[in-house]
Amino acid sequence: MEETVFLNGSLVPLSSARISPLDSGLLYGYGLFETMRAYSGRIFHSDKHLERLLRSAIFLGIHTGMTVTEMEGHLYSTLEANGLNDARIRLTVTGGQASTIPDLITTTQPNILITARPYSPPNNRVYEQGYSVQISNTRRNSQSTLSRIKSLNFLDMLIAKREAKQTGHDDAVLLNDKGMVTEASTSNLFILVKGVLITPSEESGLLPGITREIVLELAGNAGLSRAVRGVTLAELYRAEEAFLTNSMIEIMPLTRVDGQVVGDGRCGSITRQLMTAYKERVRKECTSE
Amino acid sequence: MEETVFLNGSLVPLSSARISPLDSGLLYGYGLFETMRAYSGRIFHSDKHLERLLRSAIFLGIHTGMTVTEMEGHLYSTLEANGLNDARIRLTVTGGQASTIPDLITTTQPNILITARPYSPPNNRVYEQGYSVQISNTRRNSQSTLSRIKSLNFLDMLIAKREAKQTGHDDAVLLNDKGMVTEASTSNLFILVKGVLITPSEESGLLPGITREIVLELAGNAGLSRAVRGVTLAELYRAEEAFLTNSMIEIMPLTRVDGQVVGDGRCGSITRQLMTAYKERVRKECTSE
Repeated sequence: MEETVFLNGSLVPLSSARISPLDSGLLYGYGLFETMRAYSGRIFHSDKHLERLLRSAIFLGIHTGMTVTEMEGHLYSTLEANGLNDARIRLTVTGGQASTIPDLITTTQPNILITARPYSPPNNRVYEQGYSVQISNTRRNSQSTLSRIKSLNFLDMLIAKREAKQTGHDDAVLLNDKGMVTEASTSNLFILVKGVLITPSEESGLLPGITREIVLELAGNAGLSRAVRGVTLAELYRAEEAFLTNSMIEIMPLTRVDGQVVGDGRCGSITRQLMTAYKERVRKECTSE
Repeated sequence: MEETVFLNGSLVPLSSARISPLDSGLLYGYGLFETMRAYSGRIFHSDKHLERLLRSAIFLGIHTGMTVTEMEGHLYSTLEANGLNDARIRLTVTGGQASTIPDLITTTQPNILITARPYSPPNNRVYEQGYSVQISNTRRNSQSTLSRIKSLNFLDMLIAKREAKQTGHDDAVLLNDKGMVTEASTSNLFILVKGVLITPSEESGLLPGITREIVLELAGNAGLSRAVRGVTLAELYRAEEAFLTNSMIEIMPLTRVDGQVVGDGRCGSITRQLMTAYKERVRKECTSE
């Protein structure tokens, strides 16, 4: 069966979905996206993802003309049209067709695209072993708003990840222009230092993820001390535990940085506790009636 | 008559040109572009633009499978198909259709798109008065290769320009993460200090433009002292003359920065000399047989 995508109000076969070559998302990266995970036919915290996207759209001057509830309806229609229960859903919103002249971006109607594809998480062995990351030579720009929104300007991250993979790592962690730790190419980062769970602050120049927010909440519920602040590379190297978070991988232990072992080189006990709490949260949100 | 665009080997009406919603240029900004100006049916230094694009494509791992000469042929076909002599031509090359999973970017065939539209430069009064610019709060990232290639990740520049326009300026000039001057949103910057023509170096985090290269050459031919190096904001404020360069506006005097007058607030004499030399160069390249 051919994949079905949602495009500007309609569910259409992928092969007949057409984006104009003058779309401003294509020409200049003028647009936003969200990636969400569906479990058993329920999209985990789609509300938080959609609220974030709509906030960023206002900043960029993109008027979707849709409420969170309407958008949510389209996410579910796309999921169902593809007969999927466990899936990776991507929502892309662009500024719409642009003049080719790079100016005040006078665009027409935005383009709204949703894709849903089957998703299986990495297997348990990967979670037990944890990720190995490389510190990228590419730096995040803490002095640009784009570092803090999920825009279509995503190439720096993909280049950093590709370079990391080419040298045998699972992912790249990027520092900012001042040398402080920010995030991995598609995930946020947490470290445990003297029993305090720390994640770099938004001002460091990173995208504050939905999973990051949920993990902070779960850590609070579990009575853990938490801090959101600048994190140095030395702190990452010497952390007792570390892990990465995003909607797809959930919580992934981070066990090696630039070839050096983090903590005892295995999934730490606080990390494991949070992984279990997250699974429990998913179970509560996505399987109850 | 409907606009004709070149897409992957064919000239087609704009309305029937289709880009896949899974194009990696759209999803992640994985691609490049060039903007060229045609005068009297001749594209000014298309060779330099195409060589730059093909160099950057190798860096990004995009295989166009085309030579400069073949690409050039397609630029001219598009120009002619639209019956244009004086035009703005944009060539866009993307990584092609991607998996929606942000990973090693395994793409298929690149998408190659060319558009050609009528272009008229700003009128003489604008050149006499010169541009007024605002120093943007958004900084360029000198620690990312993307600052030095013309990728589809162009949103920072458009936001900076939009903010400048909203406060009554013509454009924005961006500093880098260390506070050094880089470029304007779509043009390079030159200043004249103690008779030396200075433009910020590529290491500052800027796209070294084709027009910038030609202007440096013309200045050399005219026996002017030149320097390519880091430029401070104080130097820009106190410059004797300043101007912006790109393929479309050629050489545009820069006469006000953040409301302060540069030099005597009018097009300077060295600037004017270079404007004349550039016009002469265009005449030689684009009207001889």
